[in-house]
Amino acid sequence: MPLYALTLEYQGGPFVGWQRQDNGLSVQQVLEEAAAKLNGGVVPPVVAAGRTDAGVHAEGQVVQVALEREIAPLKLREALDFHTRPHPLAIRRAALAPEGWNARFSAIRRGYRYRILNRRARPALDDGRVWHVKAPLDAAAMHEAAQRLLGRHDFSAFRAAACQAKSALRTLDRLDVARIGEEVVVTTEARSFLHHQVRNMVGTLVEVGQGRRGVDWPRRVLDSADRTRAGMTAPAEGLCFIFVRYEREPDWV
Amino acid sequence: MPLYALTLEYQGGPFVGWQRQDNGLSVQQVLEEAAAKLNGGVVPPVVAAGRTDAGVHAEGQVVQVALEREIAPLKLREALDFHTRPHPLAIRRAALAPEGWNARFSAIRRGYRYRILNRRARPALDDGRVWHVKAPLDAAAMHEAAQRLLGRHDFSAFRAAACQAKSALRTLDRLDVARIGEEVVVTTEARSFLHHQVRNMVGTLVEVGQGRRGVDWPRRVLDSADRTRAGMTAPAEGLCFIFVRYEREPDWV
Repeated sequence: MPLYALTLEYQGGPFVGWQRQDNGLSVQQVLEEAAAKLNGGVVPPVVAAGRTDAGVHAEGQVVQVALEREIAPLKLREALDFHTRPHPLAIRRAALAPEGWNARFSAIRRGYRYRILNRRARPALDDGRVWHVKAPLDAAAMHEAAQRLLGRHDFSAFRAAACQAKSALRTLDRLDVARIGEEVVVTTEARSFLHHQVRNMVGTLVEVGQGRRGVDWPRRVLDSADRTRAGMTAPAEGLCFIFVRYEREPDWV
Repeated sequence: MPLYALTLEYQGGPFVGWQRQDNGLSVQQVLEEAAAKLNGGVVPPVVAAGRTDAGVHAEGQVVQVALEREIAPLKLREALDFHTRPHPLAIRRAALAPEGWNARFSAIRRGYRYRILNRRARPALDDGRVWHVKAPLDAAAMHEAAQRLLGRHDFSAFRAAACQAKSALRTLDRLDVARIGEEVVVTTEARSFLHHQVRNMVGTLVEVGQGRRGVDWPRRVLDSADRTRAGMTAPAEGLCFIFVRYEREPDWV
């Protein structure tokens, strides 16, 4: 069975998350049902680079889909982009997967962006796309605190209770915080993240930005490996999965 | 009656446009009903700098509202931002209007942004916020063509049939076209615009971008003053009213 790689863009709000669930429509289900139309009615096996939670957006989620017959990647991309309508899910790129490639396990870098709307007025244009924090945030202090979390650590303090990873050891390669107009934008990269790791780090950094904690506090939380010491889990709607990188990048069209 | 200035942000999609109409909910109605709650139940007179059409977004629409009693601008901003919920309309700034100031007639500069998503895949994240044009656009050619429209001209070729302005003479101060990743973004500024002027200019420039017309064609259309010669009216959803400037700027909070 030929294996295809796809790059997806989707809104998080209308879905229960990436993964199929009984309680509502998932991105996986919409993609699988569209792919089944190109696969003789058979729902093909699909694997994503990251299982985004309900409400989390994607600009560059990468998934694999195994079809029964070969189809030109260009045609696959266009057909799936059509059959996933009218859901807010688009197929940005497609490729025949390289030999031995796996959307999840071959990924060497993942990138997320977290947007905080930091002003008094509530979000109107970007409602559902940002976390609204009214009190002024010191983005420079947040950035300084963030730099102390870089490197290889046990990130237990920032993992969800439901996280199923065997080990909490992760290498954090980037955690930048910058003010862009009315927004404070957090950009982070790692080979992989624990469940809720980005949202828990953001919730913790916001306490520094509000001046409630010092710039060395998030690192102390990290070192404690104690989940109860971290800040709140930042809401899903501010988070966007922006890219996945591979050692052998598919030949995208 | 004290007069207040407000800066509004809103989504265009859920509204029939700025102006009150019988066939649906307008931005004006939502704002007026919220303001009435602070005005003893009386709907106050409201005037906008620009009457945006259905589907057109705003980041920086400016309006005036005349209330029966004085209220601190900070309190007014917060109260209206609360009472306009849950509509995607936010009050970004408020001020007591300067003596003799009028939201519409005192404006000396208006700015609009038009976003074109120029890729094969349909919009997912920014569905309803961009015009989707699949065929590759030459943004540099569009920009070159646009520069030839700058200055004081009779813009009859780019005005809507329903436009009520007495004269079609306008001075176009800026019309920049730039590629930003997958988007082609048009930014334009003038003291004032005719009805549909921006959308008609964008629809005309896109024909240049697609290579169907030369870079001198939009200027020839302008010179003809013939509305039937221009390109299509670009869809409302790509347009955003981004700012209004005044000689005497209100003392915003």
